[in-house]
Amino acid sequence: MARWEPGARERLQVAALELFAARGFEQTTTADIAQAVGLTERTFFRHFADKREVLFFGQEQYLQAFLDGVEAAPDAAAPLEMVASALNAAARLFPNERRGYSRARQSVIERNPALQERERHKFAELASAVAGGLRGRGVTEPAATLAAESAATVFGIAFARWIAEGEDRPLAQIASDVLGELRNLTSPVSRATTT
Amino acid sequence: MARWEPGARERLQVAALELFAARGFEQTTTADIAQAVGLTERTFFRHFADKREVLFFGQEQYLQAFLDGVEAAPDAAAPLEMVASALNAAARLFPNERRGYSRARQSVIERNPALQERERHKFAELASAVAGGLRGRGVTEPAATLAAESAATVFGIAFARWIAEGEDRPLAQIASDVLGELRNLTSPVSRATTT
Repeated sequence: MARWEPGARERLQVAALELFAARGFEQTTTADIAQAVGLTERTFFRHFADKREVLFFGQEQYLQAFLDGVEAAPDAAAPLEMVASALNAAARLFPNERRGYSRARQSVIERNPALQERERHKFAELASAVAGGLRGRGVTEPAATLAAESAATVFGIAFARWIAEGEDRPLAQIASDVLGELRNLTSPVSRATTT
Repeated sequence: MARWEPGARERLQVAALELFAARGFEQTTTADIAQAVGLTERTFFRHFADKREVLFFGQEQYLQAFLDGVEAAPDAAAPLEMVASALNAAARLFPNERRGYSRARQSVIERNPALQERERHKFAELASAVAGGLRGRGVTEPAATLAAESAATVFGIAFARWIAEGEDRPLAQIASDVLGELRNLTSPVSRATTT
């Protein structure tokens, strides 16, 4: 009994996302998700605490990638260089073939305020963990929190662009460009005339 | 009937905060708050939609101060100079005599996850409004969102320091110092030896 189903988690994730998109998040039950891939609800709960967590599974890995990136930055790097290294490490978790899944996930989240709140909370936890990593590398406060919040903001903006229709640059490149814009915030506004 | 009570709003706010601190937010009712200052629950609801909003009253004024600050920045200012102007304008809403109230409010919020979420939502709305203001001043995306998120982060950090025990600098000065640290994130980490 309770045997391990290879690939069950991924199949549940894909089925859940399809159901959330088709019926709405609230209208989908864990039993619906399990049935869609021929598994029992009991198997569902071996993988996920509840249906919401299907959308947020993998956060530890995601946080760890940011922290590994902070660790990988050279000694005496500036805080924003450590952030650049963290963004690069995190972007590796999102190869281009994940774009479709990420796009569908975002569209489910945008239609549900409770999921939006869960997403805000995720970014707050991310910033807090990255700030801890930066302090571990000798960055003092408030610089550590400022840099960590910037990392979360840059990642959020880059991610939103990455999943935008028509965008085809890799996430790492978009994140690097957005971080460049952050460095550039001290330059006067150039009044581009849009004609 | 339903006559206007001068100063009722402020009295209700002070009484609510005292009750939240003494009994806990969940254990305090709107009737308790009204009774504490000799008013009816009906009067309470003329001022606040619910007991949570007692703690978040004035957000429009607060948002407007940030936007006025963005407007007041000189032409061709850099995005971070517009942010500096916004922080200054917002800090004016928090003179030193408000420190005690703000400190008590924060301590109520920190003990209640739902209030923390409301506070996170407030900061998200602030960043979104400031980004709009910056776009109105000619700042393009993603610079506008990056600068606006930075404004919210700097204000959050500065505010937490302002209400810390033993802190006596005015909020505007703390915010200006924290913004200076943000500008400095591109400098290498100096390994201060703490002895």
